[in-house]
Amino acid sequence: MRIVDIIDKKKQGKELSKDEINYFISSLTDNSMPDYQASAWLMAVWFRGMSEIETANLTDAIINSGDCIDFGEFSKQIFDKHSTGGVGDKVTITLIPLLAAAGIPIAKLSGKGLGHTGGTIDKLESIPNFSCRLSVEEMINQVKKIGVAIGQQTNNLTPADGILYSLRDVTATIDSMPLIASSVVSKKIAAGAGHIILDVKYGSGAFMKTPQDAVELAKLMVRVGKHLNKSIIAVVTSMEEPLGRAVGNALEIIESIEFLKGNIIKGDIAELTYDFATIALMQTGKFIDEETARAYLKELIYTGKAIDKFKELIIAQGGDPEVINNYSKFPQSQFKIEVKAKSSGYIKRIDAYKTAYGCKLLGAGRDKKNDPIDYSVGVFLNKKTGEPVANGDVLYTIYSNAPAKTEECKKYLDEAFEICTEKPAAIKQIYEIIKP
Amino acid sequence: MRIVDIIDKKKQGKELSKDEINYFISSLTDNSMPDYQASAWLMAVWFRGMSEIETANLTDAIINSGDCIDFGEFSKQIFDKHSTGGVGDKVTITLIPLLAAAGIPIAKLSGKGLGHTGGTIDKLESIPNFSCRLSVEEMINQVKKIGVAIGQQTNNLTPADGILYSLRDVTATIDSMPLIASSVVSKKIAAGAGHIILDVKYGSGAFMKTPQDAVELAKLMVRVGKHLNKSIIAVVTSMEEPLGRAVGNALEIIESIEFLKGNIIKGDIAELTYDFATIALMQTGKFIDEETARAYLKELIYTGKAIDKFKELIIAQGGDPEVINNYSKFPQSQFKIEVKAKSSGYIKRIDAYKTAYGCKLLGAGRDKKNDPIDYSVGVFLNKKTGEPVANGDVLYTIYSNAPAKTEECKKYLDEAFEICTEKPAAIKQIYEIIKP
Repeated sequence: MRIVDIIDKKKQGKELSKDEINYFISSLTDNSMPDYQASAWLMAVWFRGMSEIETANLTDAIINSGDCIDFGEFSKQIFDKHSTGGVGDKVTITLIPLLAAAGIPIAKLSGKGLGHTGGTIDKLESIPNFSCRLSVEEMINQVKKIGVAIGQQTNNLTPADGILYSLRDVTATIDSMPLIASSVVSKKIAAGAGHIILDVKYGSGAFMKTPQDAVELAKLMVRVGKHLNKSIIAVVTSMEEPLGRAVGNALEIIESIEFLKGNIIKGDIAELTYDFATIALMQTGKFIDEETARAYLKELIYTGKAIDKFKELIIAQGGDPEVINNYSKFPQSQFKIEVKAKSSGYIKRIDAYKTAYGCKLLGAGRDKKNDPIDYSVGVFLNKKTGEPVANGDVLYTIYSNAPAKTEECKKYLDEAFEICTEKPAAIKQIYEIIKP
Repeated sequence: MRIVDIIDKKKQGKELSKDEINYFISSLTDNSMPDYQASAWLMAVWFRGMSEIETANLTDAIINSGDCIDFGEFSKQIFDKHSTGGVGDKVTITLIPLLAAAGIPIAKLSGKGLGHTGGTIDKLESIPNFSCRLSVEEMINQVKKIGVAIGQQTNNLTPADGILYSLRDVTATIDSMPLIASSVVSKKIAAGAGHIILDVKYGSGAFMKTPQDAVELAKLMVRVGKHLNKSIIAVVTSMEEPLGRAVGNALEIIESIEFLKGNIIKGDIAELTYDFATIALMQTGKFIDEETARAYLKELIYTGKAIDKFKELIIAQGGDPEVINNYSKFPQSQFKIEVKAKSSGYIKRIDAYKTAYGCKLLGAGRDKKNDPIDYSVGVFLNKKTGEPVANGDVLYTIYSNAPAKTEECKKYLDEAFEICTEKPAAIKQIYEIIKP
């Protein structure tokens, strides 16, 4: 078998065999294939796509390129939720304590985030002393004890994905359905969960710009899961505007705590958290009736069981649980600037990408793996889409540590907000749920 | 400017600017761009193609990536002919002495051939002691003295083409019109000739399989030449069967000598040599009437001036001129095997690719730059397409140095020959001539 023939076959639009895909990925992983052949292949895949079977075989080959996590006795029950990434998306943080309180074991591995704002681990580590550096054994013990653990992915999981992703990033081949699907699904399967929910986002702040593209990707990932005997449910959701009101690491944890305390009862974060949690309760077989599941979840919030579980998690991972009742324990920004509306009407839209970019300028995200993150900065959206606004009302609040950065951020946020005279239609959070 | 954006632009099918192409080629040449970005770009070009202007800009950037040869006072008059490569193609060797005898200065640079049989330099170096290692100064002096010199390309000409070609070879991106056109034309322009004829071949033994593809490539190359102010004529010719009767290095030189002596007066080699020579005499302004030019060329053959010029060339470059009258001075193969026809009729076709592959098996070509070549081996086609054949007639002759290789070669040659009962239509050598 020759790599050049595999490239040529894909270039001609033919379907690659399982053996050819395995040979390609193993040659990539053991460095026997030069990068320039890998990148030519990636570009050919960008143009020709891959069939469902090819994508499943590619996913399987990527999984087999490294280790797989085994959570032992828990493996089959373990639940994992992954989001393709969105601005202000703290639904993983609201969902995990809620489901753990419902008795679903969670041992979640996350990566550090690259992007405009931090990833789940970055957000959690804005809690003083909270640490995600747990070994697999430590995670298993913690799940046995309190039902939940969140670790940082440091193992040799899917190394082929790492190599491919770095190449895609510099060869303009990121935006390819089969390459995205195999990357996401391989990582989730290798991370060892028995039940997986994927949140596939579309909109200005997401990778997929249209709901149609997101549905196509979601369907592909669910089918790939099926080929590999893994129960995956994909939920296509809107990322036209930031999720919730807080964008920025500590700010998002505070908003999550507010939800878990029962202080946020409506809006996108509440809606999505309850929806995902309900799907998870049914996927894992805990409930068969949706309404009962939903009522049970609300009960967990209002009785304080959800926020108590979050407190247990914080303590177990070395964090300061005082943050729950005293937000001044979080890193604080030097400046807090309220920006007021210059006209009246309704909020028509808040551009997610521009909001994220503004936060990035404040220092909320990172470009490279080891760049530092400023946990304290970010933006709070005092008004959200559909809400009425009067001239002079606070529209949004910037948390910043440098006046020059504040100004730059403000420019993007001012562009992000659109005000109109008629009340716009409500945004539907969930576009489609795709089950196997 | 970022390379990833240039790749993305081409991937989206947009036209690259002259600046973008220059930046890409200079980053390639100074090694500041990694190979994996170059190969992703090549694959994007394979899919999207390039406009005429883009191809001209790419050609120009490749020319500027290295040195250009300057033949001083001769530069404008110097004539060069290049063939995209064909089986048994010795027309460069028959043409050069003929045109030199006609007073057209020729300083031709050739590369060593990669492929099933050797290149022009390999063929010439089958003449004992003949050497093509001439400096540019030595070439100029030799052209001043006898009007012709053939050198081996050792200079730093079009280094970007070398890098691109190596990458194309291993990334399945050889067969792209703009990449082929820019590669051929850049090398010819950098080699310094004032008048260029390109022989663009199509058929089983050529890179372009159909005359339509060859015409498209030919037109592109002529137009690129025009953009770069260089007079290029492209001639699209058939490579459905080997040119002439000899395939193999020394065997092809013998056939060339036979033509220059006036012993081959009809058939493809005579036809093409006279056609190209006539075009060259008119392109360089030596003649304006085609018939007169053609008659003059025949005169040069029959008066012995052409073969005398070849003898001068051999002597000037250190070769043994005795080969002209005594073919036993050439390297001799150990075995000479005549293979006879098993049926009667007419030769319907002789597959060029299979013939070449048979010769390769004998050792007539090379895979890598410094592989040795066996000058003595090859195949002589005793019958050519359209000729009658009786059961038992010698069909072809194998010149070999190993019985096992002879058998393997014979298998391919037997497949190459097709015999039919009706006399087939004559093959038209020239399909189309494309002038600026």
